[in-house]
Amino acid sequence: MTAATTTATTTTAAEPPEGYAPTDRTVPTRSRQRASYDRALVHAILDEGYVCHLGFIRDGAPVVLPTLYGRIGERLYVHGSTGSRPLRMAGARPGGEETAPGLPVCLTVTHVDGLVLARSAFHHSLNYRSVVVHGTAHQVTDPEELRTALDALVDQVVPGRSADSRPANAKELAATAVIRLDLEEVSAKVRTGGPNDDTEDLALPHWAGVVPVAPRTGVPVASADLDPSVALPSYLTAP
Amino acid sequence: MTAATTTATTTTAAEPPEGYAPTDRTVPTRSRQRASYDRALVHAILDEGYVCHLGFIRDGAPVVLPTLYGRIGERLYVHGSTGSRPLRMAGARPGGEETAPGLPVCLTVTHVDGLVLARSAFHHSLNYRSVVVHGTAHQVTDPEELRTALDALVDQVVPGRSADSRPANAKELAATAVIRLDLEEVSAKVRTGGPNDDTEDLALPHWAGVVPVAPRTGVPVASADLDPSVALPSYLTAP
Repeated sequence: MTAATTTATTTTAAEPPEGYAPTDRTVPTRSRQRASYDRALVHAILDEGYVCHLGFIRDGAPVVLPTLYGRIGERLYVHGSTGSRPLRMAGARPGGEETAPGLPVCLTVTHVDGLVLARSAFHHSLNYRSVVVHGTAHQVTDPEELRTALDALVDQVVPGRSADSRPANAKELAATAVIRLDLEEVSAKVRTGGPNDDTEDLALPHWAGVVPVAPRTGVPVASADLDPSVALPSYLTAP
Repeated sequence: MTAATTTATTTTAAEPPEGYAPTDRTVPTRSRQRASYDRALVHAILDEGYVCHLGFIRDGAPVVLPTLYGRIGERLYVHGSTGSRPLRMAGARPGGEETAPGLPVCLTVTHVDGLVLARSAFHHSLNYRSVVVHGTAHQVTDPEELRTALDALVDQVVPGRSADSRPANAKELAATAVIRLDLEEVSAKVRTGGPNDDTEDLALPHWAGVVPVAPRTGVPVASADLDPSVALPSYLTAP
């Protein structure tokens, strides 16, 4: 999981290269051994989550907002209402042609896997997996792409759910805006393993190790007004 | 939890006001009823987490990185090494005087509480609590404040842990940098409750309700080289 240094240099139309090309801003200045550009690793980290933190610039200052995303191949879709500030700034991209400059963004997804407790305060750390995507986001205006993106957003949270819900109607589609960010300038960062205490600290009387952390999904709670004949779907009962 | 509209207008030196004053950038353009400026709510959301997403501008483009934070009163401390880019840009603040302009940042903390499944794809949502802090970060250079901040960073992850680990020595302190962001321009956003389906959708044959989500802490795994006489501390065994 750590420090995969993929350096794929060839590509074909049918098959994307195994890794994303590193750039100045995807090569970290520290803990460089934790960075990876491996496409499969990036996809796996993205597919395990559904909330990203989207960064953009507003009035010259940085803004970071949590929001939902969905992935289809090398495209990320981010949800918002048509009134939201980042979407207005992303502008339109009718018919796939870029008629607006788009919105420069940084999209980050993070999973915490463990608390790393070292004998020394200095070596305390976290086990985690994160993906950082840099690029320019554009509003999705093609009706077919918009429908596909909305399905992806719903299925990212609960796989299989979009096929078991009422699809958006024309009025809802008009009230929903989605921006698209292509996976081009991307890196992952992964830390695994136990604490890295200094040798002279190993005999200190402080517990050292890892406390695992993971999201827990609880028992689904049906709406009070749910028709009692509607059973809990299998995609919510699977372990 | 939702839409608390605190409008505290008075303050004393001993006791901060109950709420943060809203500003142009802390009043959302949508879902305004979910926004809150209540100080106790903001503190509670911050205290439940330890990972934030820190946004800043680098070479004119937004950057969002996950990192650890700790809170002491109305101050947030964010961890990094002295070589990291945001810390270098934050500059020094020796003796409490601002001799560097500091780094404009946006710091966001998000907790996901539930997946909200509606009959319609359009009304799918998340239950969540988030805090967004805008401001200018400065590097902590006062040795005493730096030590206190490092303790807060460790205790934010595992309360009580800083007292049960070897404190940082001079060499480690020199290799550690912490930036400080004061809680002044702050807002919380909270969504709770079930799906908000349209009345005409209530009889549709799709399950609707909430799937609770929460972080789960697993059984601590001791380092292989841990002295067997060191017991698991009580702050890790408490429920």
